[in-house]
Amino acid sequence: MKAWQFAGTGKPLELNEVEEPHAGPGEVVVDVKASGVCHSDVTTLDDPGWMALFQHGLPRTMGHESAGVISEVGEGMEHWKVGDRVGLAPVMSDGDALGYGKWDGGFAPKLRATDDNLVVLPDEVPFDLGAMATDAGLTAYHAIMAVGGAKAGMRVGVIGLGGLGYIGARCAALIGADVYGAEINPETQKLADEIGLAGVAGSIDAFKDKNLELIVDYAGFGTTTSAAIETLTEFGTLVQVGMGRLEATINTYPIIINQLTIKGSKSGTKEDLAGIYDIMRSGDLKPPVNHITHADIPDAIDKLRQGGVIGRFIAMYD
Amino acid sequence: MKAWQFAGTGKPLELNEVEEPHAGPGEVVVDVKASGVCHSDVTTLDDPGWMALFQHGLPRTMGHESAGVISEVGEGMEHWKVGDRVGLAPVMSDGDALGYGKWDGGFAPKLRATDDNLVVLPDEVPFDLGAMATDAGLTAYHAIMAVGGAKAGMRVGVIGLGGLGYIGARCAALIGADVYGAEINPETQKLADEIGLAGVAGSIDAFKDKNLELIVDYAGFGTTTSAAIETLTEFGTLVQVGMGRLEATINTYPIIINQLTIKGSKSGTKEDLAGIYDIMRSGDLKPPVNHITHADIPDAIDKLRQGGVIGRFIAMYD
Repeated sequence: MKAWQFAGTGKPLELNEVEEPHAGPGEVVVDVKASGVCHSDVTTLDDPGWMALFQHGLPRTMGHESAGVISEVGEGMEHWKVGDRVGLAPVMSDGDALGYGKWDGGFAPKLRATDDNLVVLPDEVPFDLGAMATDAGLTAYHAIMAVGGAKAGMRVGVIGLGGLGYIGARCAALIGADVYGAEINPETQKLADEIGLAGVAGSIDAFKDKNLELIVDYAGFGTTTSAAIETLTEFGTLVQVGMGRLEATINTYPIIINQLTIKGSKSGTKEDLAGIYDIMRSGDLKPPVNHITHADIPDAIDKLRQGGVIGRFIAMYD
Repeated sequence: MKAWQFAGTGKPLELNEVEEPHAGPGEVVVDVKASGVCHSDVTTLDDPGWMALFQHGLPRTMGHESAGVISEVGEGMEHWKVGDRVGLAPVMSDGDALGYGKWDGGFAPKLRATDDNLVVLPDEVPFDLGAMATDAGLTAYHAIMAVGGAKAGMRVGVIGLGGLGYIGARCAALIGADVYGAEINPETQKLADEIGLAGVAGSIDAFKDKNLELIVDYAGFGTTTSAAIETLTEFGTLVQVGMGRLEATINTYPIIINQLTIKGSKSGTKEDLAGIYDIMRSGDLKPPVNHITHADIPDAIDKLRQGGVIGRFIAMYD
């Protein structure tokens, strides 16, 4: 089979002929139906710091946002069966991830996976959304639901409505929270109704009078952190996810006087993936998607490198 | 009886003859045995912003750090009896506090108190420490124990070893945590052995190799917040208490990647006061105290205003 493989920092993706995988003990083979292209694929290719994640040799098939159908079941994995629809949480318990370390990813028609990865993909959730949910969805959901504790009736702020922020805000709106969005891009602000926001503005401090109990900062430009701290109500929580600009100048007074909590959030768990799939069953969480083919993957990475892309690139198989 | 009373911003304390209080329903009268002088007495006298806390008229007897003996029991307060030793948590459930609003404080031989305030003072704890614990002790204990969750075996950093920091660090050391201190004053650094520290340095980041799980910043100079964030281990917690300088320039990267929590902490509860009294029963928590008389209170406030005081001023009665 043909696989797009990482060969080292600064090198182009290689399209190599590789052997089809087989399921060892504790493994299944998944026929990939959809595989997302992520901005971290760009940084993996461009930033030498990521080479530390490839200590088991190169080339390595990339792609860490995949969904598909089980086609082979290894020893001890009889709780799965051929034909099961699955999404693949990317992180392995050994610290590796699909597409990194010793694990090939979804930029090929088949991959090996374990119970670290496998989450049932409900019939109502199409493969493209199932793939997108495994990374952007998982990270967005983890921050606002697992770490932030969003719930029905809660007054929630979301900073940044592109990518992760769209998903986080939509999840919170769908479970019945009152969600206020902050977004500097006027085009992205137009998504407010589609997301189900109670209000949208350029900065979250426009909603100081809303007594926000939770703010999730998916942008992370320093000024966003600072504005969130000034906006939260007493005992409120800021969840910091975005890393747009890492330096923030903040006022500690409201942290102390209002007894705020600030929490950093990264990635997510299999439980989070199951949670977002449950929300997706309704059909009401449909972030923008750009469908591409397996052949288009390097081109999609180039477009992400240039910036300005709206919607996730998802390579569809078959 | 003679009471030192607040008469308005910028005015000197007035020594006035006032009527002795009697216990109404839900109240007791406490004969004050010890009453601490706090830096917030200085700001109450000097800063017009505090006038908002005196909407029930002036003058008002100051003093919000008191311990004593119950001398009169009002209707519905029969669970207390004359002769009970008590410490007085200062904050009332109506939002006022002893020495503020409509409640007179401990700069007089007697005061009225309610179940909002009353905590049993164990026989082993002298009145001077019992008084000190109600504000500085309560705030220090709340931050490191209730908010920070310090416990035996935990690796804890404490920033600032004067005042609150001394008490917080000593509490953590006494319950069996490994406590590392950061303190810029070389004289105060000499308290390290008395507190029971595992190490002391000028900045907490000297202990980056200790994998600190909890850091409490009792200083709050911005740089201290920043250094704490750079020092904590994965899933670590920073509790922010001190307000030495309210602007902090921080790096959000370790917050996100190490999934840190930052919490603001102020004041404390009756449960915290009971907790610190329990630690004080051992006789091993004895922060520095300067005993004064009732007549010395204005002079003590002047000394606090000038700065550089080591040890709490406690006015002793009888």
